[in-house]
Amino acid sequence: MPPGPVFDDTFRRKFEDLLRWRRDVRSFHPTAVDPALVEHLIALAALAPSVGYSQPWRFVLVESEPLRECIRANFEACNRDALNSYEGAKSELYARLKLSGLREAPVHIAVFVDATTEHGSGLGRATMPETLEYSAVLSVYTFWLAARAYGLGVGWVSILDPHEVNRILEVPEDWKLIAYLCVGYPEEEHPDPELERHGWETKVKEFLLRR
Amino acid sequence: MPPGPVFDDTFRRKFEDLLRWRRDVRSFHPTAVDPALVEHLIALAALAPSVGYSQPWRFVLVESEPLRECIRANFEACNRDALNSYEGAKSELYARLKLSGLREAPVHIAVFVDATTEHGSGLGRATMPETLEYSAVLSVYTFWLAARAYGLGVGWVSILDPHEVNRILEVPEDWKLIAYLCVGYPEEEHPDPELERHGWETKVKEFLLRR
Repeated sequence: MPPGPVFDDTFRRKFEDLLRWRRDVRSFHPTAVDPALVEHLIALAALAPSVGYSQPWRFVLVESEPLRECIRANFEACNRDALNSYEGAKSELYARLKLSGLREAPVHIAVFVDATTEHGSGLGRATMPETLEYSAVLSVYTFWLAARAYGLGVGWVSILDPHEVNRILEVPEDWKLIAYLCVGYPEEEHPDPELERHGWETKVKEFLLRR
Repeated sequence: MPPGPVFDDTFRRKFEDLLRWRRDVRSFHPTAVDPALVEHLIALAALAPSVGYSQPWRFVLVESEPLRECIRANFEACNRDALNSYEGAKSELYARLKLSGLREAPVHIAVFVDATTEHGSGLGRATMPETLEYSAVLSVYTFWLAARAYGLGVGWVSILDPHEVNRILEVPEDWKLIAYLCVGYPEEEHPDPELERHGWETKVKEFLLRR
């Protein structure tokens, strides 16, 4: 058994920088991303933890411009509905927020969970079946952090009708959409979330109980 | 606007080591963990992305030995039920697996999502409300990776009845259990998942479609 790696203060400081500067990115440079890098990041994403080692993440690289246009149209419709659910100042603020980089991002990736996978043989899922979905969520975040370490930005778009995304991308009905990711080199870099900077929400002190 | 941090090859190699050696840990040293470190890791966990910046994660440090015993009893019951769901060789293998470090781990943390939080004002959740849960999942993984960078191991226990955990820990009904974490210094370190090493499941080539 080889000894495990040692992480020092220098690494930890840099890793904390990574966590702080990760950000959800909605404004991208048109610069293309090396396809080999995208594949490397997807291989890293597959190092995420998964319940029972089920590895249920499924990645779809959306390259077709007509399909991207369908996704954008779905986003626009869902975003209009969302805007209509707010009133007054909140509605005005919502209308000013840029909530996706679907038009500019050079790379689009849809991430699904395969709800029917037999890998893992159900281990760990009997009482909390949602952990299968959670495993795919963890692969998204692994991708996100690794992408940031390569200078890329990722934006997670959830303002989409997930069933429509399945239909547009022609993926099996048993796959459930987890995230639609916009990926590319960011126009700007920030250590604070865009929704904080634009006054939508403030930082909450983390909630810790003792029992 | 300060310039963002630059991550170099040395950092990326080390970060990939972190992803590869993260592991789900079930065997812990009795060595205590500095409480200040635990609080620091929880603060880092709160740097996770969250839908609409809702920050819905809620952490409960379970310190009471009688409460830990109740959690262990619940795990034992759920694990017996799980064992009974397998047959033949799979059942024998399941019985030999060590699936939690609930007895040895010096630190126990339950992580919940507050389904009623008003933070974020619902942004990003209209069509995919499950993204609120996903946000809490991301905080768990942030904690996990940061803990590993400090030489700690984390085990995510999902073989529990989540409603019983709420009752045992006396937390609000509107909080949904995301993960029960065992935390401490690991007995052993491995770059391969325990379920792979013990023959439960094999590595799957990551699944990538193009559209």
